[in-house]
Amino acid sequence: MEQYLQNRSSLIDQDLSFRRDRTKANTVSELSADRAVRQIRATEADSVWLANESAYYGDDTSPCIFPGMQFLTAKSLIMQTKLFKLLVKMPKGALLHAHLDATVNARLLLKFALEHPCIHIRLSRPLTITSITTAIPEFRPLTAASSALSLTSDGYVPGEWVPIVKARDSFHENFGGPEGFDKWIVDALMINPSEAYEQYNTTNKIWRKFQSTFAVSSVLIRYKPIWRKYIYEFLSSSVDDGISYIEARINFHYKHMFGEDGEESVPHREWLIDLEEVTEQFRQTLKQQGRGNEFVGIKVIYTTVRHATPEGLEWYTEDCIQLKQEFPHLIIGFDLVGHEDSLKPLIDYIDPLLKFRKRQEELGIDIPFVFHAGETTGDGTKADMNLYDAILLGTKRIGHGFSLYKHPKLLQICRERGIAVEACPISNEILRLTSSMPMHPLPALLNQGVPVALCSDDPAVFGNMGLTFDYFQVLVASETTGLLTLGQIARDSLQHSLLEPAEKEHALQLWESRWNFFIRSIVEDHGSVGDQQVN
Amino acid sequence: MEQYLQNRSSLIDQDLSFRRDRTKANTVSELSADRAVRQIRATEADSVWLANESAYYGDDTSPCIFPGMQFLTAKSLIMQTKLFKLLVKMPKGALLHAHLDATVNARLLLKFALEHPCIHIRLSRPLTITSITTAIPEFRPLTAASSALSLTSDGYVPGEWVPIVKARDSFHENFGGPEGFDKWIVDALMINPSEAYEQYNTTNKIWRKFQSTFAVSSVLIRYKPIWRKYIYEFLSSSVDDGISYIEARINFHYKHMFGEDGEESVPHREWLIDLEEVTEQFRQTLKQQGRGNEFVGIKVIYTTVRHATPEGLEWYTEDCIQLKQEFPHLIIGFDLVGHEDSLKPLIDYIDPLLKFRKRQEELGIDIPFVFHAGETTGDGTKADMNLYDAILLGTKRIGHGFSLYKHPKLLQICRERGIAVEACPISNEILRLTSSMPMHPLPALLNQGVPVALCSDDPAVFGNMGLTFDYFQVLVASETTGLLTLGQIARDSLQHSLLEPAEKEHALQLWESRWNFFIRSIVEDHGSVGDQQVN
Repeated sequence: MEQYLQNRSSLIDQDLSFRRDRTKANTVSELSADRAVRQIRATEADSVWLANESAYYGDDTSPCIFPGMQFLTAKSLIMQTKLFKLLVKMPKGALLHAHLDATVNARLLLKFALEHPCIHIRLSRPLTITSITTAIPEFRPLTAASSALSLTSDGYVPGEWVPIVKARDSFHENFGGPEGFDKWIVDALMINPSEAYEQYNTTNKIWRKFQSTFAVSSVLIRYKPIWRKYIYEFLSSSVDDGISYIEARINFHYKHMFGEDGEESVPHREWLIDLEEVTEQFRQTLKQQGRGNEFVGIKVIYTTVRHATPEGLEWYTEDCIQLKQEFPHLIIGFDLVGHEDSLKPLIDYIDPLLKFRKRQEELGIDIPFVFHAGETTGDGTKADMNLYDAILLGTKRIGHGFSLYKHPKLLQICRERGIAVEACPISNEILRLTSSMPMHPLPALLNQGVPVALCSDDPAVFGNMGLTFDYFQVLVASETTGLLTLGQIARDSLQHSLLEPAEKEHALQLWESRWNFFIRSIVEDHGSVGDQQVN
Repeated sequence: MEQYLQNRSSLIDQDLSFRRDRTKANTVSELSADRAVRQIRATEADSVWLANESAYYGDDTSPCIFPGMQFLTAKSLIMQTKLFKLLVKMPKGALLHAHLDATVNARLLLKFALEHPCIHIRLSRPLTITSITTAIPEFRPLTAASSALSLTSDGYVPGEWVPIVKARDSFHENFGGPEGFDKWIVDALMINPSEAYEQYNTTNKIWRKFQSTFAVSSVLIRYKPIWRKYIYEFLSSSVDDGISYIEARINFHYKHMFGEDGEESVPHREWLIDLEEVTEQFRQTLKQQGRGNEFVGIKVIYTTVRHATPEGLEWYTEDCIQLKQEFPHLIIGFDLVGHEDSLKPLIDYIDPLLKFRKRQEELGIDIPFVFHAGETTGDGTKADMNLYDAILLGTKRIGHGFSLYKHPKLLQICRERGIAVEACPISNEILRLTSSMPMHPLPALLNQGVPVALCSDDPAVFGNMGLTFDYFQVLVASETTGLLTLGQIARDSLQHSLLEPAEKEHALQLWESRWNFFIRSIVEDHGSVGDQQVN
C-alpha cells in the first residue's frame, strides 16, 4: 500500500510536471496563502454555491447554480463572495487581449454620449413595445440643428436624427421614460443572460447579437472627445482592478474617426496621439496620488477585420507600417479579428502577410503577429486550422486558442517556444464555445505547460470588467488550480508581453513587489488556517 | 508560398501523426467511400441542419439546430438523414461499454412486464395531474391475489399493489387512460429533452433523474422470465445495428433476482446460466437465418456500485471470483460503477482491490480491471483523480475517461500501453458533461493516438439504441474525422476487447470482411462523387 501511494504520487508529479505553477519554488508565505484561499473556496463551495442550489430532485424552478456556472447569471453572487473580494486586490499583471472599443462600462459610455449635445440618435423603424428589445439605435455627431424631438412620438419618421439628450428626455413613459431609454441603450450595448443562455444559445446566434453591440457603440467611441474619455476610463478602471500594463487591440477597420466638427475625417495617427496624451495625463494623475508604481503603460496591437480581401488587406498593412514608423514604441503587434467560424481563414491572407513581413525586413522594423486563432469548437475546420497558420507565420501569442488543446504537436510547440495563449474564459462561455467553466479546456493547456494569460476580451459587452471575474471563474472551476497558479498566470502575462526587455524587467519587478505584499496581506488576514492542509 | 504550403502540410502531418486512422494504408475504395461520406455530410450540413435553423437574428423561437447538437432534440432529424441511414449498415465491431440493465427499448420492457400477470405496481403517494411527471412507479412480481384495482381511483391507498394489466386498463382518462399509463412508465424509464436541457440541466441534477430510471426498471429486469427476454432483445437489436460482439457490464449489486415464484432468491450464477442459454438460443436462430457470421458473442464485466464500504466490497470480489471459476469464458473483467462525482473514489478501495488481485494470483485466474474513471468535468477532483488509480491498478480500458484529455502523462501511457477509452458521447452529453458534440473532447483523444471505442452506455435511458447514433454524432462534429476514422474505431473496439487471442483474430477477420463489403456498397452507390476531393 505504501508502495502504491509512492507510485501514485510519482505518477501525479509526472503528469503535472509541465505545469508552469510548478516551475518555481514557493515561499512559506505563498504556500500558506494558497492554502487559505483553497479553504475559502471549499467553504464557499457549500455556503455560497450549494446553499443556493435547490438540491432536491423534482425542483425545476432554480437555475443551475455551481462554481464556474454561467457568468451572466452568477455575476451578482460572485461579487458577494469572500473569494472575489480577495481576488480584487491581487496584482493581475498585464491585460494582453482586450478590444479597446469594448472595454468601458456601457452606462459610462452612455453618460459620455449624453455629455455631448451634438450626439444624435435615430432608428430605422418605429419603436414598439415588442421591437425595443432588438431595435438597434444608431448614433452620429451632428452640428446642424434637427427638428425631430422624440423617437417615441407618433410623428417620428424613421431615419430622422434626434439629439440624444432630447431623445432621452422625451422617451415615452410607455417605454419606461428616460430610465427606459438608458436601459434600452445599455441592453443594445451588452449581452444579457436570456440572450446568451436562451434566445441565442449557440455560437453562431450569439455572435450576431455580439456584433450588433459594436454597431451601436462604434460611432460613439469614434467621436474624438468621447474616444479620449473612453481611453481614460479604460486605463483607470483597469489599474483599479490591479492591471499594471495593457496591450490593447485597436480596430483600425474604419479609416477615420469623427472630429469635434462632426466630420468623419480624423485619421489613425490622431487616434494614437490622443491615446498617448490621455495615457500621459492618466500617468500624472496616478503619480499625484502616489500610485505611480501601479501603472506601467499601454501599447497597441493593430487590428483589422477578417472580411478584407487579400488585396484590400495591403492598405491596412501599409497603414500599420506607417503608424509603427511614427509611433515605434506604441505599435507592437498586428492581428486580424472577427468571427473565425464565418470569416476568412488566415490561409487566405498568407500572401499579403508574407509580403508584410518582407516589407518590415526591408524597412528594418518589427511588428510581430499576435493572431486570434482557434476561437472555435470546430475540429479540422477553417477556424481550427488557423492555429497551424498562426504558428507557421510566427505568432508571438495566440488569441483564444480555444481548440488548441486538441493538437499534440501545437501544444508542444507552444510549450517549447513559449507561445502564450491569451485565454478569455468568460468571453468563451458567453459566446457559447463552452457552457460553463468546468467544461472549458483551460486546465488541459495548463497541464501541458502552455503559458497562459487570462484576458477579458470585450468586457463592455460581457460585464467582466477588469480581470478579477475571469480569475475568479478559473479558480473556482478546478481543484488543481490555486492562488499560486493565478500568480504564475499573472507573471506569465508580463513575461509574454511585447514590452522591450528593460521595460519587461521593470514591470516584473513592480509586480513581484506587489505580489509579495498581496501574499503577506492574505497570510495576515487568514494566518490561522494556514497550517491546515486543504484539498 | 510553395515553401509555406509544404511546411504547413508537414506541420499538420506531425500534429496528426498519432492518430490511429493514419496508421494503416487505405485502399482506393476506402478513400473513395470516405470522400463520398464527406460529401454527404457537407451537403446535409446545409440541407438538413442549416435549413432547419432559423438563421435570422432576432428570431428566438427556433431551437439551436446544428450538426452534433443535443441528441434528444435532434434524434428524429438525425434519423431522416442519408448519413444516418448509411451508418446503420456499417459493421460496428464490439460494444464494450453498456450496462446490461439499460440496453432495451423502454416500450419493450413495458411490453414484457404486461406479458406477466404476476407483475404488480404501486405508488407511495396518490397520483395527481401535476405529480405524474415525477411519480416513481414501483414494481414487484407477486403471486398472492390483490384486491386493489386501480392506481387512479379515489379509493387507492398508497402502498397497495395493483396487478399491472389492471392498473393499465383502469388508468383514468384524466391521466390519458391506458396510453397515458404507457407514457408515464416510459417517461419514468427514460430521460426526455426538457429534463436534460431545462429542468435538470447540470450533471448533478440529471444524475438524480438518471438514477431514478434504474429504480423503476430494476425489479422488472431482475424478474427471471423478463431477464431472459431482455437479454435476447438486447442481443438481437445490437446485432441488427451491426454490433458483432458485446462486453456487457452486469450490476451484481443486488444479490438475488426474483424467480417465477416471486421470491427474491435467484443467485448470481443462475443469472449467468440464463445469459448463456439465451445467447445460445439467439446464436441458433441467427444460424438458421444464415446470419451466423454476424455474431461473435457476449461476455460479462462484473460490476458493483461505488457506495460499498471497502470491507463490503470483499463480498463482491469473492463472488466475482466464484463466478469466474464457474464461468471462466464469460466473466472477463471487474468494474465499479455509479456517479463518480458523488460516490467513493477508487483510492478508497485500493486495499480490497489489491487483495482481489492477490487472491486471483493465488488461484491462477485473471479478472482484469476495466474501470470507469474520469466521467467528470472536474479538474483535480476525486472523480478526475480516479484516472490515476485506474491506470496504476492496471485497468485494461478506461470507461468514459472524459477528463483524460487534460492529462499529458496519462494520454501518453494510454497511447503507449494501448489502454483504450470507452467513449460514450451521447451519454456524456445527456448527463451534461458536455453541451453538444462539438464541445466534446473526443477529438483530443483521437489526435493523441489513444485507442477509442464508441459506446452507448445506457441506451434504454438515452434512446441511443445500437451504436449508429453515437457514430453519427461523432462523425458530424468533426471535419478531421471521416468514415475511415469510424472504421478504425470499430476495428479498435475488437482489438481492445478482452477476447482470447484466437477469438479476437476470428472476430477481426469477420469484421474486415463485412467492412470491405460495406465499403464496396458505398462506392457502388456513390461512385460518381468518389473522385471529387471534398473537405
